[in-house]
This record gives sequence, C-alpha cells and structure tokens, in this order.
Amino acid sequence: MPEAATAAAVRATIGDSEFDRDTALTRREPGVYDIDLSAGWTIISAVNGGYLLAVLGRALADALPHADPFTISAHYLTASQPGPAVVRTDVVRSGRSLSTGQASLFQYDDEGREVERIRVLASYGDLDSLPDDVRTTAEAPVIPPMDQCFGPEDGPAPVDGSSAITDRLMLKLDPSTLGWALGAPSGKGEMRAWFGLADGRDHDPLSLLLAVDALPPTAFEIGLSGWVPTVELTVHVRSRPAPGPLRVSITTRNLAGGFLEEDAEVWDGAGRLVAQSRQLARVRL
Amino acid sequence: MPEAATAAAVRATIGDSEFDRDTALTRREPGVYDIDLSAGWTIISAVNGGYLLAVLGRALADALPHADPFTISAHYLTASQPGPAVVRTDVVRSGRSLSTGQASLFQYDDEGREVERIRVLASYGDLDSLPDDVRTTAEAPVIPPMDQCFGPEDGPAPVDGSSAITDRLMLKLDPSTLGWALGAPSGKGEMRAWFGLADGRDHDPLSLLLAVDALPPTAFEIGLSGWVPTVELTVHVRSRPAPGPLRVSITTRNLAGGFLEEDAEVWDGAGRLVAQSRQLARVRL
Repeated sequence: MPEAATAAAVRATIGDSEFDRDTALTRREPGVYDIDLSAGWTIISAVNGGYLLAVLGRALADALPHADPFTISAHYLTASQPGPAVVRTDVVRSGRSLSTGQASLFQYDDEGREVERIRVLASYGDLDSLPDDVRTTAEAPVIPPMDQCFGPEDGPAPVDGSSAITDRLMLKLDPSTLGWALGAPSGKGEMRAWFGLADGRDHDPLSLLLAVDALPPTAFEIGLSGWVPTVELTVHVRSRPAPGPLRVSITTRNLAGGFLEEDAEVWDGAGRLVAQSRQLARVRL
Repeated sequence: MPEAATAAAVRATIGDSEFDRDTALTRREPGVYDIDLSAGWTIISAVNGGYLLAVLGRALADALPHADPFTISAHYLTASQPGPAVVRTDVVRSGRSLSTGQASLFQYDDEGREVERIRVLASYGDLDSLPDDVRTTAEAPVIPPMDQCFGPEDGPAPVDGSSAITDRLMLKLDPSTLGWALGAPSGKGEMRAWFGLADGRDHDPLSLLLAVDALPPTAFEIGLSGWVPTVELTVHVRSRPAPGPLRVSITTRNLAGGFLEEDAEVWDGAGRLVAQSRQLARVRL
C-alpha cells in the first residue's frame, strides 16, 4: 500500500514539525532566547496569540526545572510582527513539584530598542507525575464527525484577507457555529471545532497553548465583526493529550462594556479534558 | 427610630472600613509599599488569598495611571503570615485606556531577607469609562433569600479551628451547597452564597478580589476535606458593583491529577455579572 506508506512517512512528529521549528529558540545566555517569529502563524497580518504563548511556554520549559505548563497567564501589551524577537525569562521560585517563572517577549523598534510585546507568569510541573484520579462533571462537546464539519479550505475565505495560519492548522468547524460565515450568526457566543496541526503532528502541552486561541472569535457568532484583541489569556493544562485530533469548544457568555471573555475547553481523543482557558478580549461595538 | 439611626451611623463606607484599613499601604518610595498584613483575614492560620490579592490590587491602583483592575492574575508562591510585608510594583506599560503592571508581595525570613509570597500581573482601566452595552447569556445564580441561608454564626464551626475572617464577612451559604457541613456532601462541586462585609461596607472593584476567594472550597462538597491551596487565581472585573450584598457562585467541574479549577461568578444587587474568576488549586486525594 504505497499511498498509506507515503502518508505515514510524511506525518510530522512532536519535536520534528512546523510547530516545533517555528517555536524553536536559540539560547543567547542562560534564560535569554532569540527567535525569528514565523510569518506562518499570522491571521490577517497579526501573529496569532496562541503561537506567541507557545513560544514563551517553550522558553520557560527550558528555563525552569519542570517542563510542563500547569497554568500560564499572558498579558498582551503591543502587537507582535513576524521577525526577530528576544525572550527573557526569570525563575521566580523552584519547588519540588511546582516551579514558577516569568517571561517577556520583546521585539525591536526602528532604533533597535526593545519593545515588550507580551509578559507571562506561569507555574510548571510534571504532568506525568500526577495521579490518574479523575472526578469530572465536565462533558466533552458534541461536534459532528469531521467530514461533516468545515474548514477554511471548504469555501470562500470566511474572513477578509489571507491568513497563513490556516495552512498550518487542521481546523474543522462545527456547522452549527458557522452561521457568521453565511451572514447569519446564531447570536450565541459559541465556537466549536476539531483541531489539529496540518502536518499531522500530535499534541503536547505546548501545542495546547496554541489550540485555545486558534478558532475564529466567538464574537463573530454574536454578530460582531472585526478584530478582537486579547488583553489577557490564562491556560490551565490538565493532562498530557492523547494522540489524534482535539475537540475545542469556546464559549462567551458576557459581552459588556466593550469586553468579553472567551472560555475554551480542549478535549483529547481519549475523552479527557486536557486544557481549560479563559481570555479577556476587547471588542469594537 | 433611634435603633435604625444607630445602625446607619455605624455602617462602614468605602474608604473607611475594616477592609480599607487592613489593605492600606504606606508608600516607602515610588512603587514600593509597606503594609502590616492583618491577622483579621486568616482562615485557620493562613492569610486569605483574596485579601492578599486585594492588597496587591490596591498597590497597583496607586502605581498605575488607571485605578480599576480589569484582569489580574496571581501566582501564589509561599504561604503568607500576618505581619510586615512589602509590595514592589513595576509599571509594564501605560496606555490610553489600559495600563499593565506587575507586583510582588514579600515578607521577611528570620535573617530579615525578603521572601516572595505572591506575584501578580494585571491590566487596569477605568470602569466608569466603559460603554453601558451588555449582551449576556449568563444568568444570576438562584440562591434562597438570605434569611434561609446559613453562616458560620448559625451553627457549630463547620471547619476545625477558629477563623478570624468569618467575623469580617457577611457570608450566608445556600443550604443546598452545605451538605459537607452536615457530613453529607452533595458530590457536586458547587458553592453559593450571599456575600458582604460584616461592617456593612459596600463593594468596589478591590473587594470583588476578596469575594471570589472567600467561600468554603468547592472540594468540601465533592467530599474532600483539608487544605486546598491556590496555585494561580485570575479575576476579571467586568463592572463596578452596585451597593448591597453580592451573590457568589463557585463551580468546579474537573478534579484531576490532584488539581481542580474553581470558577467564580459574582453578581451585584442590580443583576449584573460584576466579576468572573478562575483559580487552579491543589487537593490532597
């Protein structure tokens, strides 16, 4: 079966994939890392906030004694652009089972001065050391089978402008949250999708940081259009994800005063809730 | 009616109350503040995490060009004790409508060296400048009238040890989330209460930071006992609260690997969702 063999051969793996290459950092000195932010993770012309969070998350995984983000909070300060950046990390506390760190990503202005783009605080641990005990009342989102869902490649571009990130994602949106793309938003602040990486790489804690911020804004289904910039995004990684595509469900309940929250849940193929996130974002009314 | 007149006369106000006195800071130099952490906000012997967040929130309100916390994320590093502390703040970015700051609270070890207790990142703005537009699908929690709810004063102490904080709060718990106090936890991770300050002070954005972390742990209703230390707590303040008691609803859906999330919603007397929060906490299984 040469066709299947070829597909298997080109399937990317954790550590050897577009996502890994584009979040790879070069250590300049202890705790300081250089990176060239890829243009491959832009939506319209903005660098995706989840990709940026993964870059900072990878820097902290190197700087801290623990490798897995358990909880990471990011405040987005100024808009990032593709190109050179430096990440500066600080070990706040090293504990036996948890360590806490801080990281900032800077780019350069016309005079070469550093401009801070994002600052994060995070606590890291070892997901594999946790007990297996799960007591959950959370239920996985019900999303139609993938072949009944729709991605950017299935129709005319649902948002203006081209977006490089769509080439790197396997994103299949639940048709019941796609009214906005047909000019008939549901009015409910919900967005659901199957989510993977286009090159077939499986997920790890770092790609979960991307998953929570990669769907179209729930604001589209509320009937708003335009840019919904993130002010703050906090992600809790609750379990190492099983291989295969993820289900991502995002809910907005409260749009008030020009701000909204987006609550994301990420479920893996084994039926585990692997990440929860919440962001505060601005909308133009 | 002399009785009513007396009650009105002793009712504390925003700016002149136990909460304001116990979160008041002395500016040592620009951005650096001294405080004596009050023993009045301890639960068993630990200083309440919401009180500590309010202390840091007040420092940032002074240090930043904006006065209201819109989103504040705290990572709890080591256990705080009543007594002297210093808060060091850093202005990360000053914008027109939002500014971002960082703050850390330190106490002193036996040699007088600073030990960091908590670090926060926060974005501040002006709640009064926001448009009135509200589109929400969130619904206020249904809690029985206050005289059908129960506080620590209504029965034998529900947790071992005395807790000074209960004297400073007006906490009336929904009986349907009080099974744990009678040895019959519901198994559902829910806790709901009417919430106020015992001296009658109305709420402001700073006391909302207290409100989200002042109820008994949801873990009690899941059937767990003991200490549930907060790793990280993020609060979004969405509106300035109206006068009068608040309704606070806390939900835990996913207890896994020795960690759980607590999602809090705070509603004011005018029926507005004034704060949302999520924390990641550890449990002993």
